[in-house]
Amino acid sequence: MDAMTPATTRLLARLVAETRWQDVPAQVRHETVRSFVNWLGCAVGGAPHPGVAAATRAATAYAGRPTTTLLGLGRRSDPMTAALVNGISSHVLDFDDTHDGTLIHPSSPVLSAALALAEDRGVSGEAMLEAFLLGVEVACRVGMAISPAHYEAGWHITGTCGSIGAAAASARLLGLDAERTAWAIGMGASQPVGLRVHFGSMVKSFHPGRAAQNGILAALLAAEGFDAAPDGIEGRRGFAEVLSSSFDVSRITDGLGESWEILRNTYKPFACGLVVHPAIDLCMRLRNEPGFAIDDIEEVRLRVHPLVMDLTGKREPASGLEGKFSIFHAAAVALVDGNGGEAEFSDARVLAPEVVSTRRLVTAQVEPGFRRTQCEVVLRMRDGSERRAETTTPLGSLGNPMSDDALGQKFLGLTASVLGEEKASRLLSRAWDAALQPGLGWLGEA
Amino acid sequence: MDAMTPATTRLLARLVAETRWQDVPAQVRHETVRSFVNWLGCAVGGAPHPGVAAATRAATAYAGRPTTTLLGLGRRSDPMTAALVNGISSHVLDFDDTHDGTLIHPSSPVLSAALALAEDRGVSGEAMLEAFLLGVEVACRVGMAISPAHYEAGWHITGTCGSIGAAAASARLLGLDAERTAWAIGMGASQPVGLRVHFGSMVKSFHPGRAAQNGILAALLAAEGFDAAPDGIEGRRGFAEVLSSSFDVSRITDGLGESWEILRNTYKPFACGLVVHPAIDLCMRLRNEPGFAIDDIEEVRLRVHPLVMDLTGKREPASGLEGKFSIFHAAAVALVDGNGGEAEFSDARVLAPEVVSTRRLVTAQVEPGFRRTQCEVVLRMRDGSERRAETTTPLGSLGNPMSDDALGQKFLGLTASVLGEEKASRLLSRAWDAALQPGLGWLGEA
Repeated sequence: MDAMTPATTRLLARLVAETRWQDVPAQVRHETVRSFVNWLGCAVGGAPHPGVAAATRAATAYAGRPTTTLLGLGRRSDPMTAALVNGISSHVLDFDDTHDGTLIHPSSPVLSAALALAEDRGVSGEAMLEAFLLGVEVACRVGMAISPAHYEAGWHITGTCGSIGAAAASARLLGLDAERTAWAIGMGASQPVGLRVHFGSMVKSFHPGRAAQNGILAALLAAEGFDAAPDGIEGRRGFAEVLSSSFDVSRITDGLGESWEILRNTYKPFACGLVVHPAIDLCMRLRNEPGFAIDDIEEVRLRVHPLVMDLTGKREPASGLEGKFSIFHAAAVALVDGNGGEAEFSDARVLAPEVVSTRRLVTAQVEPGFRRTQCEVVLRMRDGSERRAETTTPLGSLGNPMSDDALGQKFLGLTASVLGEEKASRLLSRAWDAALQPGLGWLGEA
Repeated sequence: MDAMTPATTRLLARLVAETRWQDVPAQVRHETVRSFVNWLGCAVGGAPHPGVAAATRAATAYAGRPTTTLLGLGRRSDPMTAALVNGISSHVLDFDDTHDGTLIHPSSPVLSAALALAEDRGVSGEAMLEAFLLGVEVACRVGMAISPAHYEAGWHITGTCGSIGAAAASARLLGLDAERTAWAIGMGASQPVGLRVHFGSMVKSFHPGRAAQNGILAALLAAEGFDAAPDGIEGRRGFAEVLSSSFDVSRITDGLGESWEILRNTYKPFACGLVVHPAIDLCMRLRNEPGFAIDDIEEVRLRVHPLVMDLTGKREPASGLEGKFSIFHAAAVALVDGNGGEAEFSDARVLAPEVVSTRRLVTAQVEPGFRRTQCEVVLRMRDGSERRAETTTPLGSLGNPMSDDALGQKFLGLTASVLGEEKASRLLSRAWDAALQPGLGWLGEA
C-alpha cells in the first residue's frame, strides 16, 4: 500500500461494525425502507421469469435446510440458495434501483444477502435494514472511487461492488468486529462478478445473485477466523489496483459516516432501461393534457441523448423484450396506454395494431449536447397545432423521485399477479413497517 | 468480437463436449493419473490445516445432503461444499502441481470440482479423469493466451482460469452439449477469483476452492437452460479483454485437441515455493556424495536467480512457515536432514540448533543472468576442499520430472500421518488405478 493511501478497507470495516440504525438520520432510514419496498416488489414480480426457474432448479440440487424464503415462489431453501435466487429474480426485469453516479443496482446484491441471512438467523427487521444500509454504503463508495473507469472497462459494477457490499452487510449481521469485517470485505473483493459480455443473456441477473452469495460466504469464513489481507480494497494487487485504471480514494473517505449514498438511490417508474424514461414521462404528460386524442397525432418528434439511440434504437420490435430496446415503442405505448410498466412491454402490446401505427409516427433526433436525463417531445397534430414537453428531471430521477405512493403502486403492479391482490397489499404494509417488526417471519407470505 | 478472432469459447466447448478418454494418447492419460495422485496426497495432507477447519465450519453451516468426501477429514458433505473444502486443503500447503508456462496450479480448482461432482453422481473413475483432463486443458490454454500480463496485473491465475477449467470439467461430467458447455465456460469466466493482495493469508487457498464451486454452479445452471453469451472468453467485454492487457488467441487454438497441456504439468518434490527447489535439490545431492559430513562444512555459497532473494530472502526464520520463505533454512535443512518435505519446514526443524548453525554458514549471491530453474551450490570444507553442484533442471522441473515412485513416496509422506500408513498405502494403490475403478466409492477411505 502506498504510504499516502489511507487504510480504506479498515475505515469501511469500522463504519460497518460500529454504526447503529437508531443513530442514523430519519431521512436516511426512510430511504432505506423505500429501497427495501422497491426491491421486494421487483423480486416477487421477477419470480415467474424462466431464468429464475432454471436457477432455482440448479441451485436447489445441493441445498441445505429450508429456512429462508424464495420470494414469489411459494417455497423455501437455505439462505445461500435464497440469496442467489432472490438476487436473480430482483434484477431479472431490470426494474430495480440505481445508485445515481455509479450505475450500481445496490439492493439486488446487498439485500439478497442481508435478507436471507437475517431471515435464517431470526433477527429483527431493524437489524436487517441496518446491515442493508451499511452494505449499500460500502458498495457505492467503493464504486464511486473506481468510476467510471471500472464499468467502462467491461465490469458489471453491480456484481463486483455488490460482492463487497454483500460481504459488509453479512459481516454486520453476524456481528463481526472491525478486523474480521475487513477480512470479509477483502474476501468479497476477491470474488468479483461479472463481465458485461453477458449483457443480453440470463447471466446479467446471475451477477447480483452470485455477488450476494459471495458476500455471505466471505462473512461466514471471516467469522470462523479464516483470515484475509486487511487491505483488500486499496492494497497492492488489491481490488482497486487490479480492477480499475483509476482510484479516487477520497470518494470513499470524504464524509464517511456523515453523508449517506442511499440518499442518491433512484427507483424506476418504468419497466425498461433508464435512458428511455424521459421520453415515456413526457409522452404520459402530453397524453394527460386536456383535449388530447391519440387519433389526432400526425407525427411524434423526439430529441434525445445519444445513448438513447445506441441502446434502444430498434425501430421494429417483434417481442416484449425487444420493445424495451425500442424508444419508438416506448414513446408510442406511453401515448396510447398512458403507462410504461411490464404490461406495456408485453408481446401483445408491442404487436397491437394501435401501438404499431402510433410507433410508425415516431422519429428521434440525437442531441449530443443533451444530458442523460434530458428529452423533448413534440406532437404535431392533424389540425397543424403542436403539443410540446421537455424535461431534465424525469420522474424517477434524483431531482424528481417517485413518491411513497407511487412506489406502493409499482409494488402492487409487480406483485398482484404473482400473489393475488390481497396478499400483495398485506405484504406491502409489512414491508413499509419492516423496521418495526421483531422478525422476518412475515416474508413467508411473499 | 473482432471479425478476425476465432470463436474461441465455442472451439474449447466443442473439445470438452466431444473428446473421449480412450481416444487420448496413453502418455496423456498417464500424466492425468499422476496429477490426480499428486493432488490427492496434497488434499489429504493439507486437511489438518486450521484454515481447512475454519472453512469447513463456515461452509457446512448451510450444506445439503452429505454424498461427497471431505478428503482427510473423515466426513462427507454435499458436492458444492466438498469442492470448496478439498480445493482449500489441496492448495493450503503450496505443495500441489504447477503448469509450466502459466503458474496455474491446475488440479486444485479443476479436480476439486470434477471429483466432487463425479462422486456425487456415481460415475466411473475414467469419466472423472476425462473431465479433469479437459478442464485442465481449457484452464491452461486460456491462461497461456493471457500470460504473463494477467498474473502480473495482480490476478491469482489459479482462481481465475481455475473457474473456467472447473466449469469445463463440470460441463463434461454433466454431459452438456457444446452450446451449453460454452455457456458454462462463459459463466465460469464471469466469476474470476481472486486477487494477489491476499497472498500470505488463508484466502490464497480459498481461491481455487471457490473457483471449483464457481465451475460446478456454472455447469449446473447451463444444464438447466440458463443461457450465457456464447463468447465469454474472446467477446467484447469478455474475460480476455477485461482481465488482461494482452490476448494471444493462437495459444488457445494452435494444436487444440492434438497437444495436451497436462504434459507440461509439474509436481513439487519439496514443500515450499518452486524458486527454492534448485538449491534443495543440489544440497541433497551433495549430502549424498561419498565422504560428506555435515560438521566438515565451513561455508555454503549459493548462486541464485533474483526471484529467490525477492521471495525467500528471510535470514532468521522463526517458524516453520517462515522457513518456507528462507532460502537459508531450505539449504541448511537439506544438508542436515537430506530432504525438503513438510517435516523439514516444521517449527521444530527451523529452530533446531544443528539446523540453525548450518543456516548461519549459508550465503546467497544473486545472478541476474540465471534462469528460474538455475542454481549453483559450493560447499567450502574445513580441509580447504570444495564440493560443487549446479543445475538448470532440478528435480520436479519439466526436464527432470519426479518418477512415479517418487510421487508415491510424496503421497505417503503427506497422508500417512493423517490416515495411518496402511490406509494411506491402500489409498495410493486405488488412486493409481482410478481409471479402472467403476466408481469412486473407495474415496470414502480418504
